[in-house]
Amino acid sequence: MSDKPAYSELTAFYARLHRFNHLAAIVSWDRNAMMPPKGSAARAAAEAELHTHIHRLRTEPRLAELIRRAEDEPLDDFERANLREIQRDWRDANALPESLVEAKTLAGAKCEHAWRSQRPANDWVGFLDNFREVVRLAREEARLLADATGLAAYDALLDRFEPGMTSAEIDRIFGALKEWLPDLIARVQEKQRHDELELPVGPFPADKQRALSLEVMRLLDFDFEAGRLDQSAHPFSGGVPEDVRLTTRYREDDFVQSLMGTIHETGHARYEQNLPRDWLGQPVGVARSYGIHESQSLSFEMQLARSRAFAGLLSPLLAKHFGAQHAFAPGNLHRLFTRVAPGFIRVAADEVTYPAHIILRYEIERPLIEGEIEPDDIPALWDAKMRTLLGLDTRGNYKDGCLQDPHWTEGAFGYFPSYTLGAMYAAQWFAAQRRATPDLDARIAAGDLAPVFEWLNAHVWSQASRWATPELTRRASGTTLDAAHFRAHLHGRYLEKP
Amino acid sequence: MSDKPAYSELTAFYARLHRFNHLAAIVSWDRNAMMPPKGSAARAAAEAELHTHIHRLRTEPRLAELIRRAEDEPLDDFERANLREIQRDWRDANALPESLVEAKTLAGAKCEHAWRSQRPANDWVGFLDNFREVVRLAREEARLLADATGLAAYDALLDRFEPGMTSAEIDRIFGALKEWLPDLIARVQEKQRHDELELPVGPFPADKQRALSLEVMRLLDFDFEAGRLDQSAHPFSGGVPEDVRLTTRYREDDFVQSLMGTIHETGHARYEQNLPRDWLGQPVGVARSYGIHESQSLSFEMQLARSRAFAGLLSPLLAKHFGAQHAFAPGNLHRLFTRVAPGFIRVAADEVTYPAHIILRYEIERPLIEGEIEPDDIPALWDAKMRTLLGLDTRGNYKDGCLQDPHWTEGAFGYFPSYTLGAMYAAQWFAAQRRATPDLDARIAAGDLAPVFEWLNAHVWSQASRWATPELTRRASGTTLDAAHFRAHLHGRYLEKP
Repeated sequence: MSDKPAYSELTAFYARLHRFNHLAAIVSWDRNAMMPPKGSAARAAAEAELHTHIHRLRTEPRLAELIRRAEDEPLDDFERANLREIQRDWRDANALPESLVEAKTLAGAKCEHAWRSQRPANDWVGFLDNFREVVRLAREEARLLADATGLAAYDALLDRFEPGMTSAEIDRIFGALKEWLPDLIARVQEKQRHDELELPVGPFPADKQRALSLEVMRLLDFDFEAGRLDQSAHPFSGGVPEDVRLTTRYREDDFVQSLMGTIHETGHARYEQNLPRDWLGQPVGVARSYGIHESQSLSFEMQLARSRAFAGLLSPLLAKHFGAQHAFAPGNLHRLFTRVAPGFIRVAADEVTYPAHIILRYEIERPLIEGEIEPDDIPALWDAKMRTLLGLDTRGNYKDGCLQDPHWTEGAFGYFPSYTLGAMYAAQWFAAQRRATPDLDARIAAGDLAPVFEWLNAHVWSQASRWATPELTRRASGTTLDAAHFRAHLHGRYLEKP
Repeated sequence: MSDKPAYSELTAFYARLHRFNHLAAIVSWDRNAMMPPKGSAARAAAEAELHTHIHRLRTEPRLAELIRRAEDEPLDDFERANLREIQRDWRDANALPESLVEAKTLAGAKCEHAWRSQRPANDWVGFLDNFREVVRLAREEARLLADATGLAAYDALLDRFEPGMTSAEIDRIFGALKEWLPDLIARVQEKQRHDELELPVGPFPADKQRALSLEVMRLLDFDFEAGRLDQSAHPFSGGVPEDVRLTTRYREDDFVQSLMGTIHETGHARYEQNLPRDWLGQPVGVARSYGIHESQSLSFEMQLARSRAFAGLLSPLLAKHFGAQHAFAPGNLHRLFTRVAPGFIRVAADEVTYPAHIILRYEIERPLIEGEIEPDDIPALWDAKMRTLLGLDTRGNYKDGCLQDPHWTEGAFGYFPSYTLGAMYAAQWFAAQRRATPDLDARIAAGDLAPVFEWLNAHVWSQASRWATPELTRRASGTTLDAAHFRAHLHGRYLEKP
C-alpha cells in the first residue's frame, strides 16, 4: 500500500486528463492546418464539448480533498513540485464555471473564423461585432480568476501564461525598455543607412522553400519521427511532445519570413520534443511558461539564426535550393537578417523594433481588460502608440494594424508580454552559454551546434516545470531575469560590431 | 414544456455523443494519414481513453429508462425512426461488457500487428496462434449480441453492418449468384480473349496523379470546402459529414488503382457530404448501412466510372495530365477498365470476379462464427472454393489466400457480404435511373452527371437512416433488393455490348 495514496490518485487522474489534452491539441492543429471551411461549425461544437469535458474533469469535487490530503503526505521535492503545479491547475480551473468556458470557446472560434476574411477586407466594424463579446467574456474570466488568486484582473490572465509575473513588474521592465529603445532604433538605422545590402532575387518557389525548411530543421536536430511541418495562415507550433506539429507559410517573393518562422517554431518544437519523457502527463512535465517557451524559439531564431556565425551555415543551403546569388554571401545574409526598419507587422518585425510592437499591445490589452478602455478605442490608441514608438501612421489601416494578430480574436489576453520576456531570457541564456563556452561563436561557425543544444537541454528543456520561473532562471544563469543582457545583446549585435 | 421530455433528452444526449465521435473520426484520420511513428504510443492511449469515454456515455444507466419513456411519448414518424435507431445503438452498446470490448481490441490489434509481417512471410501457423483468440472472442461477442437481439450468432454480427439482413437471405442471394457467376466469368473471358488492348506506359508521377485525382473529384462534384484528399498506406474515407477526409495512394507504374480508388472513395464521400444537415448528430442522420454505403462507392466506381460513356470523359483528362497516349483512347480505356481475369487478390479483382471472393469469405466466416468449423479448417476450404469459383489453386499460398485481408485479423466478421450487396444495390439504382432518364448514358457521355447525382441524392443520400433498408430500397427503386439487376448489368456490360 502506498504511503501517499492521495498523491498517487492525483497522478493517475492527471495522466487521464493529459490524454484528453492530447486529443484537443491534435484537433486544434487540424483545424488550423488541415480543416476545410465548411467543417468549422461542427468542429467548434466538438471542440467545445471536449473542452467542457476537460473542464469537468479538472473541477471534479474529489480533487480538492485529494490535494488537501496529498499536502500532508510524505512527498519528495519533485513530487511536491508536481503538487504545486497540480494546485495551480486546480485553482485556475475551479475559478471558472463551465458555462463561461464554453461561451469563451464558442465566441473565440466564431470571432477567429470571421477574422480570417475580415482582416484581408480591412473590416474593423464587422470584426467589432464578434470582438465585443470576446472582450466581455475575457473580462468576466479575468474577474473570476482575480477573485481566486487575489491578483488584479489583468494580472490574473497574465499569470496563466507567466506564473508569478505581474503587470507591476512588466511596467518596470517595459518602462525601462521604452527609455532606451526608440533611441537605439534611431542609432541602428543611422548606422545601417550606408550599409551595402544586396537583396535576394525571387521568385522562391514554395516547394523549394519547403525543401530548404526541412533541411534547416534537420540541421537544428528536429526529430521528424516525432513531428512534422505543414502550412497554415498563421504559423504555430502545436501537437504534443511525442508528435510536434509545426506550421509555416510561404511567400514566393520572400524566403526569409518562412525560413526564420520555421527556425523560430523549431525552437519551440525542440523544447517540447525534449521535455522529460518520464514526467509526461503530469503538470510538472510541461513547459515552464510561455515566456520560457519563447526564449527557446528566440534562442533559435534571434540568438542563433541571425548571428554572423550562422549566416555562414545558411549560405550554402540557400545556394543549393535557390541557385547561387551574390545576396547569399554570409556577410550580406547577416546584414539582411539584422536589417532594422520600423514596420506595421509584428511577425515581420526585426529583432530591435519587435519589443515596440509588444509594448504597444500590452499597453492596450491591460487597460482593455481592466475596463479602462473599450474595444472601439483600440484603433486610435494603436495609431497614437505606433507614431510614438515607431513613427508610423496606421489610420484606417486595420488589416496591418489592430486586426493583424489572432491572439485577441480568440480571447488570449495576457499573452503578448511573453514574446519580449522571451527575448530577454534568450539573451540571458546566450550570455550564460558564452561564459560556459568562450569559443561558442567559433563552434557555431564551424557547424557545431551541440554546445547550444546541450546547454538548453540541461538548463531548460529537461527541467520542464520543476522550478518556479525565477528559480529556473537563477539555476540556469546565476541570476533571475535581468534585462541588461538583452540590452547588451542588441548593442553588441547592432551598434558595436562592424 | 415539451410533451416528449424523454425523447428530447435523448436527442440532446446523442448530439453530445456525436461530438465525441467527431473527435474520434478526426484523430483516427490523423493517425492513418498524418501521424509520425513516435506519436503512436501516446495516440493509442489517448484514443483508448476517448473510446472508453464514448462507451461509458452509450451505456449510461439512465438511457434505458429514457428510451422506455420515449416509446410512450407522442412521436411523429420521423422521431419514431430516430428512436428506432437510438434503440439499436443502445442495444449494441449494452450487449457487450467493457472487459470484452477491451479484450477484443487488444487481441485484434495484436493479431493485426503480427499479421503485417506474417502475411509476407506466408506464416499461417504463426498467424493461427493469435487468430484463435480473435475467433474465440468474436464467438463470445456474437453469442452476447445474439442473446440481446434474438438472432443467430453470425446474424447478430452481420446485423451491425447490415441492419435487418440475415444469413438465410444471403444464402438465397449468394446461392443464386453461384449458379450463374462461374459460367459468366468463363463466357466473358472467352469474349475478351481476342480484344485488342493497349496498356498505358508509365511512369505516372505521384504529383500528376494527384492533380488528376483532384480534377476527377471536381468532375464528380466532391465539395472541397467540406473535405480533402490526402495519402495513406490503405485508402479510406473518413472524417465527418461536414468535413470528409479521403485518402489514396499512388503507384508510379499504374495510375488506374489510384484513380479508381479515388473515384470509389468519392462515392462514399458524396453520400456523407449530402446526408441531411438537419438530422446530423442523431442516429437517424447517419448512412443507412455498410452495404448501402458501398452501393454509393460502387455507383461511382463501377456503374459510372467504368462505363463506356465515362471513358470518353476521362480520356482528355489523362492526356492532359500524363501527355497523349494511344492507350488513352476512350474505347481502349473502357476495355482496360472492364478487363476480366480471375486472380487471387480481392482488392485487385475486376467487377465480374469480385463477388466470387465475397461468397468464398462468407461461406467460411459464417460457419466459423457458428462453431461449425475451426480456424485450422480455413486453408483447405479456401482452396476448394477458389477452385470451384475461379479455377485457381491456392494450396500453400496463404499470403495470396486466407491471409490477404485485414478484416478477420481485427475480428470484423460479418462485414464481407456488404461489398457484394453494395454492388447489387448499385446495379438496382442505375436500373431505376435509366427508367427515370432513358438517355442517361448519352447525358453522361456529354459530361452531364446531374441526373446521376440528383437521383442518388433524392433516393439515398437525403434519406440517411430514415427507413429500414428494404423500405429505402423499395422507395428508391420500386422493389426490395433484386439481384436480377446486377446480373443484367454484368450481362449487358460484359457480354452484349460490342
